[in-house]
This record gives sequence, C-alpha cells and structure tokens, in this order.
Amino acid sequence: MAVKAVIMAAGQGTRMKSDLPKVLHLVAGRPMIQWVVDAARGVGVDQIMVVVGFGAEAVASALPDDVDTCLQSEQLGTGHAVQIAIEALGDVSSHTVLVLSGDTPLLQSAALKALVEPNGPDRPAAALLTAEVPDPDGYGRVLRDEQGQVVGVVEHKDATAGQLAINEINAGIYAFDGARLVEGLRSLTNDNSQNEYYLTDVIGYLANQGLAMSGVKTDIGEVAGVNSQAHLADAGAVMRRRIAVDWMENGVWIQDLDQVFISADTVIEPGAQLYAGVQLQGACHVGAGAQVGPDVFAVDSRIGPRSVVTYSVIRDSAVGADVRVGPYASLRSGVVLEAGSKVGTFVEMKNTNLGEGATVAHLSYMGDANIGPDTNIGAGAITCNYDGVDKHRTEIGARVLIGSDTMLVAPVTVGDDAMTGAGSTISRNVSARALAVGRAAQREIAGYADRIDKRRKAKEERS
Amino acid sequence: MAVKAVIMAAGQGTRMKSDLPKVLHLVAGRPMIQWVVDAARGVGVDQIMVVVGFGAEAVASALPDDVDTCLQSEQLGTGHAVQIAIEALGDVSSHTVLVLSGDTPLLQSAALKALVEPNGPDRPAAALLTAEVPDPDGYGRVLRDEQGQVVGVVEHKDATAGQLAINEINAGIYAFDGARLVEGLRSLTNDNSQNEYYLTDVIGYLANQGLAMSGVKTDIGEVAGVNSQAHLADAGAVMRRRIAVDWMENGVWIQDLDQVFISADTVIEPGAQLYAGVQLQGACHVGAGAQVGPDVFAVDSRIGPRSVVTYSVIRDSAVGADVRVGPYASLRSGVVLEAGSKVGTFVEMKNTNLGEGATVAHLSYMGDANIGPDTNIGAGAITCNYDGVDKHRTEIGARVLIGSDTMLVAPVTVGDDAMTGAGSTISRNVSARALAVGRAAQREIAGYADRIDKRRKAKEERS
Amino acid sequence: MAVKAVIMAAGQGTRMKSDLPKVLHLVAGRPMIQWVVDAARGVGVDQIMVVVGFGAEAVASALPDDVDTCLQSEQLGTGHAVQIAIEALGDVSSHTVLVLSGDTPLLQSAALKALVEPNGPDRPAAALLTAEVPDPDGYGRVLRDEQGQVVGVVEHKDATAGQLAINEINAGIYAFDGARLVEGLRSLTNDNSQNEYYLTDVIGYLANQGLAMSGVKTDIGEVAGVNSQAHLADAGAVMRRRIAVDWMENGVWIQDLDQVFISADTVIEPGAQLYAGVQLQGACHVGAGAQVGPDVFAVDSRIGPRSVVTYSVIRDSAVGADVRVGPYASLRSGVVLEAGSKVGTFVEMKNTNLGEGATVAHLSYMGDANIGPDTNIGAGAITCNYDGVDKHRTEIGARVLIGSDTMLVAPVTVGDDAMTGAGSTISRNVSARALAVGRAAQREIAGYADRIDKRRKAKEERS
Repeated sequence: MAVKAVIMAAGQGTRMKSDLPKVLHLVAGRPMIQWVVDAARGVGVDQIMVVVGFGAEAVASALPDDVDTCLQSEQLGTGHAVQIAIEALGDVSSHTVLVLSGDTPLLQSAALKALVEPNGPDRPAAALLTAEVPDPDGYGRVLRDEQGQVVGVVEHKDATAGQLAINEINAGIYAFDGARLVEGLRSLTNDNSQNEYYLTDVIGYLANQGLAMSGVKTDIGEVAGVNSQAHLADAGAVMRRRIAVDWMENGVWIQDLDQVFISADTVIEPGAQLYAGVQLQGACHVGAGAQVGPDVFAVDSRIGPRSVVTYSVIRDSAVGADVRVGPYASLRSGVVLEAGSKVGTFVEMKNTNLGEGATVAHLSYMGDANIGPDTNIGAGAITCNYDGVDKHRTEIGARVLIGSDTMLVAPVTVGDDAMTGAGSTISRNVSARALAVGRAAQREIAGYADRIDKRRKAKEERS
Repeated sequence: MAVKAVIMAAGQGTRMKSDLPKVLHLVAGRPMIQWVVDAARGVGVDQIMVVVGFGAEAVASALPDDVDTCLQSEQLGTGHAVQIAIEALGDVSSHTVLVLSGDTPLLQSAALKALVEPNGPDRPAAALLTAEVPDPDGYGRVLRDEQGQVVGVVEHKDATAGQLAINEINAGIYAFDGARLVEGLRSLTNDNSQNEYYLTDVIGYLANQGLAMSGVKTDIGEVAGVNSQAHLADAGAVMRRRIAVDWMENGVWIQDLDQVFISADTVIEPGAQLYAGVQLQGACHVGAGAQVGPDVFAVDSRIGPRSVVTYSVIRDSAVGADVRVGPYASLRSGVVLEAGSKVGTFVEMKNTNLGEGATVAHLSYMGDANIGPDTNIGAGAITCNYDGVDKHRTEIGARVLIGSDTMLVAPVTVGDDAMTGAGSTISRNVSARALAVGRAAQREIAGYADRIDKRRKAKEERS
Repeated sequence: MAVKAVIMAAGQGTRMKSDLPKVLHLVAGRPMIQWVVDAARGVGVDQIMVVVGFGAEAVASALPDDVDTCLQSEQLGTGHAVQIAIEALGDVSSHTVLVLSGDTPLLQSAALKALVEPNGPDRPAAALLTAEVPDPDGYGRVLRDEQGQVVGVVEHKDATAGQLAINEINAGIYAFDGARLVEGLRSLTNDNSQNEYYLTDVIGYLANQGLAMSGVKTDIGEVAGVNSQAHLADAGAVMRRRIAVDWMENGVWIQDLDQVFISADTVIEPGAQLYAGVQLQGACHVGAGAQVGPDVFAVDSRIGPRSVVTYSVIRDSAVGADVRVGPYASLRSGVVLEAGSKVGTFVEMKNTNLGEGATVAHLSYMGDANIGPDTNIGAGAITCNYDGVDKHRTEIGARVLIGSDTMLVAPVTVGDDAMTGAGSTISRNVSARALAVGRAAQREIAGYADRIDKRRKAKEERS
C-alpha cells in the first residue's frame, strides 16, 4: 500500500522561549522538521503534508518545494490537526498514513519502515511507535493483551495503578490504515477538560472496534520531542555524534567526536583529519588528507586535498590543494587560495585571489586584490582598498616581493618580478622588475637616552 | 524550630596537592565552601558557623561577612570540630543544628530542607543524609530496623559481612536536635586507633538511648566530597552543566552545554546564543539576541543585545548593543564599545572608548584613546601611547578616516572629519576636516630584479 | 617461569580506510602498538616478538630497537601468525608465552600480570583474558565447567543456543605454557571455510587433552580491538582521560578533563593549571604554577613555572619562568623566552631569543633575532629578515625602545639603550643610547574633507 505522511508542526513551542516556530530551530545546521521530512522520504512516501500553525509562513517557506502544507488556524488538538491534513490530502482510503511530529529530529527511516511493514492484507488498522523507558511518568501507556497485541493507549492522568506500572509508552508516531483513520477521526469529540480533539482517541476507537493494532518498539532517544532549548542541545549533540561517527566509518580521522560540529551538508573525503574545535557549517567540502583544526570555523567553503588549516575562520572561500592557512587567519569571503599557496599568522583576506605558490605570511590585510603566482607578501603589508568613498583593487604580478609594511594604496598595479622596499607607501603603479621605495632617510640623534634617563629620574622624584 | 548550621572546613585536603585550603578551590568560579553556604542559606538558617583550621585566615576572609568562624587548631576529629562550633554558637538547645561539610559544593537546598523537616515535636533526635551506591566500599553503612527507622551507622572497618552488604551509606551531613547533639558530644571519647573524636559516635550514642532517627536518601552526586583535583574537575563539570541547563531552560541557546563555562555570577538574557568554547568568568552580562563564540573568553564584562562576538578575549570591558567583535580581538581592560561600533580582526584595545558606529577593522592597537562616532580606523593603525617614560592619550574626533598604518604618536588630537594618509606618522595635532600626511616620495629603481636574479644565481652556484 | 610476548600486528585494518598499517595509528600521540609493547614490558617479559605483515617495514621501524619482528607474508590466520613468531623466538618450552594483539592500546599491565600468575608448577596450560559483556554477539564464548574451569572457546557461528546465552567472551589475549602452545600449534589444520589456522583451535586442543585452563576476567574496555576510525577515537578518548586523571591525582588542575589532550610523553608539575582546549603534543614540560590555556597548542616545548600562556601556538620553543604569552601569539620554532619576558597579542616569533624582562607586546613579527634584556619592542615592529634571497639576523641590545611600526631591515644591529622613532625603517646599525628616526615631515592639506564630501555626494547622485 502506498504511504502518505502527515507531519504536525503547528505549535509555537513556548518552552523554547523563542519567537522562532519550534520546528525551525536548527539541529546540526538544519531546521528540525527537515530531518523529519528526510526520515519520511526514506520510507518512500508519495506525499508529505505538513500541518502548520504558529509562524505558518516561515515554516512553509523553510520546507522543500515538493512538501505540501495545510493550515491549522486554531489549536484544537492533535486529532483536529490530522483531520485538516486528511482533508488536504484527499482520498487516503487506499493509503497507509504515517503521522509524524515535526519536533522529533532524531527519528530515523528504519523505525518508520518497521512501522509501515508488513504492508499487505494482514496490515493492522494502526501501528504505533513505542518505547520502553525507566521513568514513564507523564506519558501515555501502551496497553497490550496476553498475546502482546496492542489494545489501546491510556493517558497518564487516566491510568489505573496497574497501568501506571507499564513502562512502554506511546511515542505519538503512527501508521494508520487510511480508511480506518478517517473512520476514527469522525468518531472524535472534544468532550474533555481541554476541549480538544485527541488523536489517541482514534486508537481507543479502533480498539473498541476489535481491530488489530501493532506496537513497534524503538529507542526513546529517537522519538523524544524537542520542547526546550536544553532538549535542542541534547538532540544536537546526538545528531552531531551520529554525523561524526558516519564520517569516521568512512575513513575520516576525528580527534574527538564530541568536539567537532559537522553540518549535514558538508562532505569530507577519506583520510582527512579533523582536530577538536572544528566547525564546518553550511555546505563545506574537505579534501582527502587535509588537516583541519584545532579551532577552525568554516562556512560554505572548500578546503583542498592535503591542505593544513589551523586556528582560522573561513567564510565563502576556496582553499586549494596543498595550501597552508593559519594559525590565526581570517578569510572573510570571496577568497581563492590556489594550489601550494600559504596564508600565515594574523592575516586577513577578502575578495582576493592568491596565486599558486604565493605567500602572505604574517600580519597582513589583503582585500580586493589579485596576487600572482610565487609572489611573496612581506609581514605587515596592507592593501589600502578604501579611500573613504570607494573600494579599489590591487593587482600584483607574479614573483613579486612586497616588502614588509608596504602600504598598497589602491587602485594600484605592481608588475611581475617587481619589489617594494620595507615601510614604503606605494600609491603609483610599479613597473615589472623594478624596485619601488618611498622612505625617509634614517638619521641618528646621539645620546638621546640621556634625555629619557633624565625624564625617568624626574618622574621617580615626583612620585 | 530555628536552624543553625555548622560547616566543617578545617582540613587541608592533602590529596589536592595544593597550598590552597581545600574548601577554597573553585567550582564554577566560586570557592566550593561558598556553594555550601548558599545551600544552607536556602534552608533559612539563623546563623552559619564555619570551623576553620588549615589556612584559617584565608578561609575566613573568603567567607561573606555574616558567616561566623571558629578555630579548630588541632585536628582531633569531626566530633571535636562540632564541639568547638557548638561552644562558639552558644545555647543551641532550642535549635536544629545542621552539620555540613565545606567540600560538598554540589549539595542543594532541597536535600537540606528534607533533612530539617518535619520540624515539630515529632522531630527525630537526628536526621542523616544518606545515599544508595552500587559500590559502598569504604563508607559508613546506615543501619535500619524492620520499620525502616535508622538505628545506627557502622564504619566500614567495623562492619560485619551482613552489614557490608548494605548499599545505603552515611553522607556525613546531619540535622541534629540541638540538645541531643550537645548530650551526644559530651559522651564522646577518643578511645580508638586514631585517637580522634568521631561525630558518628554521637549517632551510636543516640541509638543506644533508643531515640528516633531518620535517614533521608539523596543522590550520591550531591553529597560526595571533593578530595582530589580529579574530584574537583568532576564537581566542576556537574555544576557547569547545572548552570548551563538553567540558562537553556530560560531561553538561552547553547551549542554544547559541556563546552561552555558560565560563572555563577553571570547573567544571560533569553535569546542569547553561546557557541562552544565560551567562558564567561566573574560577573558577566550577555544581552538578548547576542551571539557569543566560538571560543570567547570574557571576564567581568558586558556584551550588549544583538552583538556578535567571535574568537576573542574581553576583560573588564563593556560592549554595547549591535556591536561586532572579532574574530581574533582582545579587549584588555577599560574598553567601551558604543552601539553599532565594530572591532575586527587582530585588533587589541585598552582603556579606549569607541564611539557609536565607529570601526577598527584590522591589525590595530588602540590604547588610551577616545575615538569619535562614525570614525574609521584603517588597517595597521596604532596609537603609540608610551614614550619610554609615560603613557599618553590619543583623541580622535567624529567621522575621521585614519589611513592604514598611521602611527598616532600620543599625546595627539585629530579633529572631526579629518583624514590621515596611509603610512603616516602623526605626531602633531590634525585640524578638523584636514588631511595630514607624512610620507616620503615614491621612487623607482628600474631593473632591480636583475640584481636579485644575479644573487640568487650566485647562491645556487655556491651550494 | 620467564615470559616472552608475541604481538600480532600483521593486518592492514581495511576498516580504518587508511594506507597506514592499523597498529601505527596514533592514540594519545603514540602508535597504538607502542602502548601494547609498554603493557607487555610492565609484566617483565624477556623478549617481545611482533608479527608484521602489511606495511612490515613501517611497523618495524616504528618499534623500539629491543623489540624483534618476524614477517607473516601471507595472512593464513592467527594460529599461523603465532607459529611464525614461535619459530623466530626459538625454544619456548621453559617459557610462558603471552599472545597479544597490536590493536588493543588500552590494555594495561595489571590485567596481563593476573594472566601470567600464578607462575609455578600449578600453572595452567593456558590462561585466557575474558570479559563479560551485555551483548556478546559475534564474539567467541568462553565455556566453563561446573567448577568454573575453562574448558573451551566456541566461536559465535558454531555456538548452540545455550552457548549463545553465555555473556563471557574470549578477548583473544592469552598466556600459554610454551611447550603446550607448541604442541597445540602442531595440531592445527586449516580445514575450515576460511582455510585459515585459528589460534582458538589450540584452546580446543588443550581442552581435549584434559589440561587445566584458566580465564581471567577483565573490563571489555581494555581489550576491545581498534578496527575503525570511530574505535580509534573512542580509544583515544579513554586514554586521554586516563592520562588527564593521572596528572590531576598528581596535583595538576585541569578545567575539563575531556577537553585537554596531553601526550604520553608530556610532563606536568603539580600546581600547574590547564584550561579547556589545551593540546600538549610530543614531549612538552609544564612547570609548577604555570597557567596554560584556554586553547593552547604546544608541541615539543617547555613552559616555565608560573608562566601564563593563553590562546597561543608554540612549537619547538622554550618559555622560561614568569613569562606571559598571548592571547593570540605564535612561537613557530626555535624561540627562547627568558624569565619575566612577555610576548603579547598578535605576535609571531621564530628563531628568536627574547631576553629577561623584555617585551614584545603587540602586532609584531620577530624572526632570526636576539633581543636583549628589558628591551621593549613597540606595536607593529617587524624584523625584515628576508631580502628575497637570504635570511639575516637582527641584533637588539639591552634596554632598547623600538618604536611602533619600526621596520628592522636585517642584517642590522641596535645598540644598548638605543631608541627608534615610530614608523621608521631602520636599515643601518643604530649606536648605543642613540635615537634613530627615518620619517617624512608631517604636512597638512586643509579642508580636504570637502573633496571627500563632494565625491560622496557625486556617488550618491550616480546611484
């Protein structure tokens, strides 16, 4: 039987203490509902219908295009939410309907597959995902008969002493026979203290009809909902560990898998090494044999094979093969480091192309520049790219030696094989193979230390 | 019945391998005895008497003014310590006396409240805090009768085989009926292998009198004493997690709650975000919507709402609203960053005020300076605030453009809307709206690369 | 009976997804087989024979000189490997033969000592290291008779339902009576699905002979083999924690023992403090009372007593007593910081000696330099040590004041008590007590801001 999925995502999640709709909080860099959508897709569903409510537009626009949404404008309970979804889905009588929750990012496809199978004529009217927990307080308990068949769910507050002793809880994730679900939803009333329509009452209804139901046990860790920032952190830690272990099993070395943060959209080649404190956010790519970290924060960037990047921040940039970056470098955005180049210590770059084998070793800011191959930028050299009104580019040729503390006042061009003298301010173009210098003559005032000594002595006497 | 508390803090803690008295070692930024004092206060005690011994003065001066101390000059056992405290407290016959240990920083008020209640005529002669542990080796075991009443404590070395099988241990934390405690202390002798007066013998004495005693079970994690640096680290980790979870429940987002260090005296507004590697020490304040980290170390500093601080060190400074700091900035002390200002990469500041909307973007040292609103300090600009004898101030007006690599030789003033040329050394004041330049003319030596080539060739031939 | 050890290290470890032989992967900075060699040595073995295969040369050359190797050129099973080792060892009939695996770095000597004792005439034919595990799936089960004597090992695939219920597994680590081992090896055949010679069949043979065997239970954590990058990370985490706890028990304060990385060859004096994010690699030494971290990466370096090093990278360098380094400093290699000196923020040094009490406070690069005692290097000062062909040295005397942004064009010498003016390029030697300056006169263009205003206005109108 084909499967359709309903994902409930209408709640605000007030315990999150945040204006963001709960299901949009990030887990490993993705809105948590995205993880639920992926888990549903892993089962091969025909259609996914997300029930939105609080922050409906924000949630809808965060979802992939092929996921549908329907609006629950009043919060009248889980049964009501599913009813709205079913109306939006149309005829589900020949479908299995998965009912999921947008706040369970750790749910995986394997558990859902177990829930929708067996998928033949013997299929039960409903299958529940359940979990055994040491402390079931507050959860609905799963009731089974002597044959182990599920015969109902009882809410914590309605449970007898004997039922309270049951450790198997209802995870709130279901696979319904579509026809039976519709029938059950019709039977719902809001005749309870909250005046809400409860989806669990559908289970009770089906049980009363004497229909078969099954319960599939899974790990509580997969199905626990995220309801607070602390839950969010816990879920994030589990997801991070899951991602890190996957990369390790693929041949990546990770110094400490609890101390790396790898986004879901990052790719790492086997043989790469990640030290502690590495954060790879957005869509990063790390090449084979690259060493990254400690303490590297990269966003939407590539790090080429065999490159070594330590203690640095890299955004929207491309580091080529066999490149060295850091410690303490910042590639702000739009930086391309070609093969074999080197960006050293206390170097910041932006919108700059560094040619093959070129070096910016220390204490430099290179912004809006092209730097040719095998060029060496001396310590303290700076591109003065902003004149108070506009930004200008600096063009530096191949095999150039830029002297220490050279100010390159853009727009300016330095030809191939040229040099600049240490401490020079270069505001006019430099010819190829020429040495450009702008420097006052060094002169000496003998015995100047006597003046200092006198002042120090006077100061001591004053104090 | 009113409650008085005795806290035992006389031991050196030789296993700590430190000259610091044991109870002064820090847990989440506070001496561990401070946590015990706070737990006692949470019960509403009338008076707190700390028994000091090793490092008596240091311990006494670390305590709040309203906490009393008494000296145990010889280490004659726990019973002896309490005897000294009772003498210092005076008449306790109408009080409940809490006996605590200064080395249990994780103890919380809830456990102590359970210990001093019920507080009426039925109150037992003594109530013990106990814990059930899988491996009770080395601990005193709690003996209960068939009704579950505590009837004694037996030390591990004196226990029978049957008693050794008891998993409930004595945590060494008690609430005594004051009169009964005095009576019990009088009965003590030092007739044992250590020649010490043991407080646990008071329990034995009271049991022999047939008096009722109760045992209140708590978690071993709360009552385990810190006796080594490893214990200290474990206690610190638990306390840190406790603090971090509290802030998360209050709406703060924390990337990994095991990788942040939040002092007990720090306040964080809901909606703030802390990435991994953040340390907030002393009394910090983080505003709503601020993003802090990764890897920010802040001491006694404020970070304003919506400000973003990454990879930086901040001491005794105030970062206003909507400010950006880092990556790789150091605010050494006395720095004020006004709203909307920006301190970028490789920037160090000290005793400096940065005006609204002003920017120090890269590679600068600003010390002893006032920088006006909307002023832009170019890359590599430095305040030369020390002349070898004295430190001087630099005054920079509003909307100034300080060129890259400008040396501002203090004392010096730059007027509003002024500019300085890149690479200039400014030792005299600059008028408002003027451009100040100090720069040698750029000249060019054509074909200089030939000389370099010749030298390189010669070098190659030599080698 | 004297003991010889065989360590099996022939496998590639294909699940590691690495070209490096499995046993050479690092755990806490050492090849994992080195840890096994050390554990064997702790038992006082006469001789250690390592069976190498994949990457034989690399493994052999990584081993200490007094460890022998023999080559298993074809992978014909564990029995075959031991057979080759026995041939290489010669007569072992009067020895106990320990059989170890090179991929169990967490194994400790205590477990091996229990395995080789009692070492008298009653010694069993074989002793097995075993472990009880909750999920024994896939492991060989240990069979014991009613008296608890080991009577065999059954592989998972050959086990009956009853045997599958056994939780005690064979760790694959043995102490054999040498004569019995030789006898058992002779009995082996490769008559099985893999056509391999299995060492476990020796156990079966000895059992069939009715010989006594003992099983020594240990913790699964010690004996689990490292077979994937994820296992390697787990083993590394356990080893790191073990090392950190050892130092803490020795009086070192560690802020978070899961967030420091201390190599096996590092020494730390009591009273030293390590904050989170510290990595001490290679052979480091940290003096008493030193504060290191957060986020310090040190390799083969010394940090002297009472020195404070924060947020820095240090390689092959020596930091003296009472020195301050960082935040954000990089000592690249060959740096010596003498007592009481200071290296501040955004400072990089290489091959440089900094004299007693001297200071390089900010934004400097000092390479190939000698800096005398009590000298102060101003912010932004740089040694221009590379002229495009050669590197040259800079010699700076005692009590010198190098002005901010001074370029020291090497080779150059600055005499004692001399000064340089801010922004000067110094290419000739400076006499003792003299002030050297190279600076263009400051001039002013009044009303320059009008031009900027005009351009800004024009730009606005264009857009």
